[in-house]
Amino acid sequence: MTHLVAASSVQDVLVDLFVLLLFAKLGDEVFRRMGQPTIIGEILAGVVVGPAVLGWVEVGETVEVFAELGAVFLLFWVGLETKLDDLRDVGATAGLVGALGVVLPFAGGAGLAAALGEEAAVVVFAGAALVATSVGITSAVLSELGLVSTPAGRTILGAAVVDDILAMLILGVAVGIAGGGGADYTSLLVSTGLAVAFVAFVALGGTRLVQRRPGILKAPKFSESPLLPAVILCLGLAALSAKIGLAAIIGAFLAGMVVAETREQHPIEEEVAPLYAFFPPFFFAFIGLQLVPGEYTDRSTLALLAAVTLVAVVTKFAGAWLGARRLGPREATIVGVAMVPRGEVGIVIAGVALAEGAVSEEFFAVVVGMSVLTTLIAPPVLRAVSRPPAQS
Amino acid sequence: MTHLVAASSVQDVLVDLFVLLLFAKLGDEVFRRMGQPTIIGEILAGVVVGPAVLGWVEVGETVEVFAELGAVFLLFWVGLETKLDDLRDVGATAGLVGALGVVLPFAGGAGLAAALGEEAAVVVFAGAALVATSVGITSAVLSELGLVSTPAGRTILGAAVVDDILAMLILGVAVGIAGGGGADYTSLLVSTGLAVAFVAFVALGGTRLVQRRPGILKAPKFSESPLLPAVILCLGLAALSAKIGLAAIIGAFLAGMVVAETREQHPIEEEVAPLYAFFPPFFFAFIGLQLVPGEYTDRSTLALLAAVTLVAVVTKFAGAWLGARRLGPREATIVGVAMVPRGEVGIVIAGVALAEGAVSEEFFAVVVGMSVLTTLIAPPVLRAVSRPPAQS
Repeated sequence: MTHLVAASSVQDVLVDLFVLLLFAKLGDEVFRRMGQPTIIGEILAGVVVGPAVLGWVEVGETVEVFAELGAVFLLFWVGLETKLDDLRDVGATAGLVGALGVVLPFAGGAGLAAALGEEAAVVVFAGAALVATSVGITSAVLSELGLVSTPAGRTILGAAVVDDILAMLILGVAVGIAGGGGADYTSLLVSTGLAVAFVAFVALGGTRLVQRRPGILKAPKFSESPLLPAVILCLGLAALSAKIGLAAIIGAFLAGMVVAETREQHPIEEEVAPLYAFFPPFFFAFIGLQLVPGEYTDRSTLALLAAVTLVAVVTKFAGAWLGARRLGPREATIVGVAMVPRGEVGIVIAGVALAEGAVSEEFFAVVVGMSVLTTLIAPPVLRAVSRPPAQS
Repeated sequence: MTHLVAASSVQDVLVDLFVLLLFAKLGDEVFRRMGQPTIIGEILAGVVVGPAVLGWVEVGETVEVFAELGAVFLLFWVGLETKLDDLRDVGATAGLVGALGVVLPFAGGAGLAAALGEEAAVVVFAGAALVATSVGITSAVLSELGLVSTPAGRTILGAAVVDDILAMLILGVAVGIAGGGGADYTSLLVSTGLAVAFVAFVALGGTRLVQRRPGILKAPKFSESPLLPAVILCLGLAALSAKIGLAAIIGAFLAGMVVAETREQHPIEEEVAPLYAFFPPFFFAFIGLQLVPGEYTDRSTLALLAAVTLVAVVTKFAGAWLGARRLGPREATIVGVAMVPRGEVGIVIAGVALAEGAVSEEFFAVVVGMSVLTTLIAPPVLRAVSRPPAQS
C-alpha cells in the first residue's frame, strides 16, 4: 500500500487530514518524551508519512490550505500576545534586523549561484530563496520557550514583518528578470507602498478603533462570545494580506494585535486555543511533506545542499545579529538564531521559481532541503542559547 | 466582478473560506434578529454568494472538505450530548422510524418516476434520492430547540443511523442497476454487514473501553487537555466510516458518544465549542452553494420540482410518523417533521447518479432543489410543532 489516498475525493482528503494530524501528534509525543522541541517531531512526522518516505499523504490543495491556516492561527495567537506599544519600542532595531537579515542572505545566495556560473535568473532566485524568515516556525519556538514578550521576541516579530515586505519586493524583481522583461519597477513600487500602507493602517488604525470601541467584537448577536467575529477578522486580513502580495500570516498577526486591544484578551485566548491546537500541526507536518523523494541521493546535490544551508545559516545569523547588536550579546544571539529557519517561505519561493521555469528540479529540491534543515537546526540551538545564565 | 475567485491557488481558497464564513454569519445574524431559524440564514447566504446568484464562491475540493468537517463537528457535538443507554431505550422505535422513513419515500420517488415513464435506472435513483434524512440539519435544529435529549430527539438520532445504513444499501443497488450489470448482492451484503458491525462495535465496544479507562484521552503528553486526542478519534472514525460506505458523520457521532463516556464531558464540550462554532457554517452555506444556476426558470422543471418536493415531504413524514406513533401524537409529529430535511444527502446521491450518467442535468437540479426546499421547510415547522402546549 504505497498510497493510502488518491487525493481526489472528499473522503480521501479526510483520511489525509486524519493521518497527518495523528502522526504529527505522535511525533510531538515522541519528541516531548525525549525532552526535545516538539515542532521537530511534527516536521519529521510529515517527512515520514509524506512522499519522501512512506507516501501515505500527498500534497494537495486542501492539505496546503490546512497548512496555511495552521500558520494563520499560529500568528493570530502570537498577535494576541503582542501589544503595538511593545513593537514600537523595538521598532528601529527590528527594522535594522529585518534589513540586514535580508541583504546578507540575498548576497550570499546570489553570490554562491554566481560563483557556480549560473545564469541571471537562477542567481536572483537563489538570493531570493535565502531571504525570508519563517515567522511561523520562529513564533512557535518563541512561544514554547516563553520568549514572545521579551525584547528579543518583539524584535524578532517586528523584523519578520519588515523581512516579509522586503522578500516580496525581491521576489517581484526575480520574477520580472526570469520573465525576460526585467522588473517592472513602477508596479513593484506600488505594491510595496500598498503593503506598507496596509500594515501601518491596520496596526495603527485598527488598534485605535478597537481601543475606542472595545465592545465591537461583541456587537453581533450571532455569537455570545467574540470568537467568531475575531476569527472572521483574522481570515479577512489574512486573505487581504495575501491578495496584496504579503504573506497571509502578516494579516493574521495584525488581526491578533487588533483583537488583543479589546482588553478581553484572556477569554478570547481560551477560545482560540482549540483552533490553535487543531490547525498548526498541519503547518509543521506540511513542511516535512514537501521533501522531494529521490533527489537527495546524488553526492553533488548533497554537497550543494550543505553549501547552501551553510550560507543560509551564516548570512542570516550574521545579518540579524549585527542588526540586534545594541540589545547586548545574549539577546543578539537569540535574535540571530531565531531568524534562521526558512520554513515554508523558502519552499514557496523555490516553488515560484520552478513554476516560472527559471530553475531546475535539483534547485527546488536543494532549497526545500535547506528550508527543512534550517528549520530543524534552529529550535534546539535557540533553546540552548536562551537558557538563563547559570547562577553560581 | 462575477468571480472573486478562480479556486486554483491557496490564496484564492482562503478568500473563498473568508467570504463563506462572513456571509453565513451575516445570514445567521439577520435571521436571528428576525427571530427565525438561523441555519436558514446560513443556507440562504450560500445561495446568495454561490453560483446561483452572485457567483463569488465556487464549489471546490477544499470548500467541500470544510463543509464535510462542518457536518462532522456538528455530529461529534451531538454525540457528546448522547448516552448509549438513552439510544438503547428508543431502539425499537428508532428502527421502525428509520425503516418506514426509507420505504415510503423510496416507493414515492420511484413511483413518481415510473409514472412519468422514466427508465429503470432513473426510477431507482429517484427512489434513492428521496430516501436519506440529513441528520446534520436535523441535529442542528434539535440543538437549537434544546430537543436533543428528549425521547423524540433520541429516536430521530437513532433512526438517522438506521436510515443511513439502508440508504447505503439502496444506493449500492441503484449504482449496480445503472451500470447495467444489475446489483452485486454479495458485495452489498458484505458492506451492509460491515457497516452494522462497525456501528455496533464502536457503540458497544468503544463506550465500554472508555468506561473502564476513563482517563484514556488524557494519556498522551502532547496535550494537557483531552481535546486533540478526542478530535483525532473523531476524524479517524469519520474517515473509517466514509471508507466503508457510510456517511462520515455516523463515525463522528459514534466518536462523540464514546468521548462522552469519559465523564469529563463538560470541559471537553467547552473545548470543542470553538471548533463547533467555526466549521458548521461551512456545511450550511455549502448546501445553498450547490443550487444549479439557470435550471429553475423552465416551467416544467418547476412543476417537477414541486411534485418531487411534495412527494418527499409527505412520504418521509408519513413513514416516520407511523414509526414513531407509539410515542404519542405530539412526539410522532416532531419525529416526522425532523426527518424531512434531505440536506446534503439527497444532493450527494443525485451527484452519484449524474456521475454514473444515469440521469439528466434536470434530474440533478430538481433533486438539489428538493433537498434545499425540504431543508428550509423543516426548521420553522419543527419549531412550531415542538412548542409546549399553551397553558390556560
